[in-house]
Amino acid sequence: MEMSEEIATTAGWREFGDDALSPPLRAALGVFARHGYHGASIRMIAEAAGLSVPGLYHHYRSKQAILAALVDTAMAEMLANTAAAADDAGDDPVTRFENVVECLARFHMARRDQAFVASTEMRSMEPEVRAHHVGQRDAQQEMIEDAIRAGVDSGDFACEFPEDAARAIASLCVSIANWYRPDGPLSADDVVCRHVEFARRLVGAAAR
Amino acid sequence: MEMSEEIATTAGWREFGDDALSPPLRAALGVFARHGYHGASIRMIAEAAGLSVPGLYHHYRSKQAILAALVDTAMAEMLANTAAAADDAGDDPVTRFENVVECLARFHMARRDQAFVASTEMRSMEPEVRAHHVGQRDAQQEMIEDAIRAGVDSGDFACEFPEDAARAIASLCVSIANWYRPDGPLSADDVVCRHVEFARRLVGAAAR
Repeated sequence: MEMSEEIATTAGWREFGDDALSPPLRAALGVFARHGYHGASIRMIAEAAGLSVPGLYHHYRSKQAILAALVDTAMAEMLANTAAAADDAGDDPVTRFENVVECLARFHMARRDQAFVASTEMRSMEPEVRAHHVGQRDAQQEMIEDAIRAGVDSGDFACEFPEDAARAIASLCVSIANWYRPDGPLSADDVVCRHVEFARRLVGAAAR
Repeated sequence: MEMSEEIATTAGWREFGDDALSPPLRAALGVFARHGYHGASIRMIAEAAGLSVPGLYHHYRSKQAILAALVDTAMAEMLANTAAAADDAGDDPVTRFENVVECLARFHMARRDQAFVASTEMRSMEPEVRAHHVGQRDAQQEMIEDAIRAGVDSGDFACEFPEDAARAIASLCVSIANWYRPDGPLSADDVVCRHVEFARRLVGAAAR
């Protein structure tokens, strides 16, 4: 099917193709996911990246800098795509909410290792890195909360606690990374459908 | 307030007091939670427990045996309390479902470190330990799913995908361990109320 350039652009938030990680970051992702931050050494990461230890230090000054760059890249991609998903909905608050949930679900299927490392290695982030990461997570949750409040204001949703509902929906989407497998019984579209429906129920959307 | 013995017994599933961990396991829990399994050494655990390394080996033959015992103790407690919560509901499927959700929410507030270590260190479990742990998690999810199906059969719930809804509810409760703080803005009872309501909405329970 040939798609116009305009459609390709507005629908782009659904696509998570290349992860845009530099080769050292991609190598570090695998090592962190398998061994954890504290169990990973610069030597292990360098070996996985096919670099010498000084070669790796040429790119990143420390293991902490690698963790920071890795998590920031993933979170920035999530935020950019979620913002595009919200914009793509135009003025309809229900579609906006559904797009945001769909985008989060798709991100956590496409970027399972990044999501796992970001959530498990909060403990390993130095204060500044952690504060930056928490800011990105808060921004994410606020996008969900804003979408919920817009739907409440328009009378489409019945939700007494938008902040708690936003956290619950974010948690649900994040947890997809823990159990989803591309070769499992549910297709990515199945997962999206079910989670959009779960999220609609959580915010008291009228049944379709 | 004086409570009869009968009330104290049937309501016992709501109480998560002493964690029933041996001192070496409690020490290991702290070390694993801070450093991760691969970043933790037997020496660190022995020091935290106030034991010599040979003294620790007297209790547990390996770091893997410590992880296995730690996670098994937590999961066994969760399963026992959830079963008690379900039994406590008698024949009413809605109360049974709500009790199971409440118990899971309370467990994940009372046992935050255990929940974190169990979910992040699946990767570090040797095959047998992992299989045992997965079996316990499946048993947990089945208790939720059974409660949902009973409510669907009785006409109290409208839920097309009980298995997916059970997984979503388990994920929601597990995630409480990541953000709940005893000194945070929500009391434990607030968290329970909101999550029981979220879970009711997920399974399509009639509004109260």
